[in-house]
Amino acid sequence: MRQNAARRTALLDGAIEVLAREGSRGLTLRAVDTEAEVPKGTTTNYFANRAELLAQVMTRIQQRLTPDATQLADTMSEKPSAELVATLLKQLHARMRADRSSWLALMELRLEATRRPELHTELTRFFAAQLDGNIAFHLDAGLPGDRITVVLLYLAMLGLIVDDLTVPELLASFPVDDLIDAMAQRMLPAQG
Amino acid sequence: MRQNAARRTALLDGAIEVLAREGSRGLTLRAVDTEAEVPKGTTTNYFANRAELLAQVMTRIQQRLTPDATQLADTMSEKPSAELVATLLKQLHARMRADRSSWLALMELRLEATRRPELHTELTRFFAAQLDGNIAFHLDAGLPGDRITVVLLYLAMLGLIVDDLTVPELLASFPVDDLIDAMAQRMLPAQG
Repeated sequence: MRQNAARRTALLDGAIEVLAREGSRGLTLRAVDTEAEVPKGTTTNYFANRAELLAQVMTRIQQRLTPDATQLADTMSEKPSAELVATLLKQLHARMRADRSSWLALMELRLEATRRPELHTELTRFFAAQLDGNIAFHLDAGLPGDRITVVLLYLAMLGLIVDDLTVPELLASFPVDDLIDAMAQRMLPAQG
Repeated sequence: MRQNAARRTALLDGAIEVLAREGSRGLTLRAVDTEAEVPKGTTTNYFANRAELLAQVMTRIQQRLTPDATQLADTMSEKPSAELVATLLKQLHARMRADRSSWLALMELRLEATRRPELHTELTRFFAAQLDGNIAFHLDAGLPGDRITVVLLYLAMLGLIVDDLTVPELLASFPVDDLIDAMAQRMLPAQG
């Protein structure tokens, strides 16, 4: 069996679109063939089964959601402050807006994980690695606040993203930048 | 066609279980018959179609999630404070833990709403009524903070509940009562 990295990525991107558009029950190996416009059976050649496909989808989503290193380095050249935290959160939100499919796919995987113990274990590991990474990044950068701060910001941003993905009009009277500014200003300790 | 209020409620409760356990794609009128252990065709006698069933499911979820009036009155006999806000949030969290099916069903409806404009409109109205109610309750009770406070608490609690429903081990090292205390203490203005 020959495999090609670009085609594998195209199949994973197809799987993310199918998940986002049709939900986890719509995600079959054949649906990925159709979405990626490849001959029937191609996806089966790349992934032994649906579980393996889902595991690689998570890795691909992580790649897609990782901030651009140059932009991040540029952002982090500022002095650590509540404003810098707000900037980072706004960049996260902008990445979500630019790639709703990845976030919707993650929501679908969360719900499917309530029904599949194997996926549950993998997904928990996936989010734990992200959260640990966020905590380490925040503390290493000398940003204001402690571990609990990072968890509270993570939770509030998760709520914001869930609403924005599913009922975006709900908070229409609260501009998202204002909410993020308030989040950073109110949750972070006053600057010394 | 004769209808019976208790049986209607039993069908709606059955629909909530099917949504929570099998996802929105698993929710058919026939699956509700099976879940509620009623003769085939019963659900069709009560709900003209799936859209009407979903609309009434939302109303039923709202009933199930509404706090007990006596307990709430008892809680609100305390002086308004950040501690009282934390108590209210802990009670919300305890209601979620006691009725995960309702919350999982709402998550399924959120994702289905991304694919069905009609459901989207109804679900947005449903959450908007809840949020407006929360804001009015908070301000009328003289609890500390403003409208933005209530929105930020709503978002952080939504994130906490989504994690608790789908990847409950993720925050295992952060006891939920500590997180809620931190949320209330850090997001609310200092008491005068």
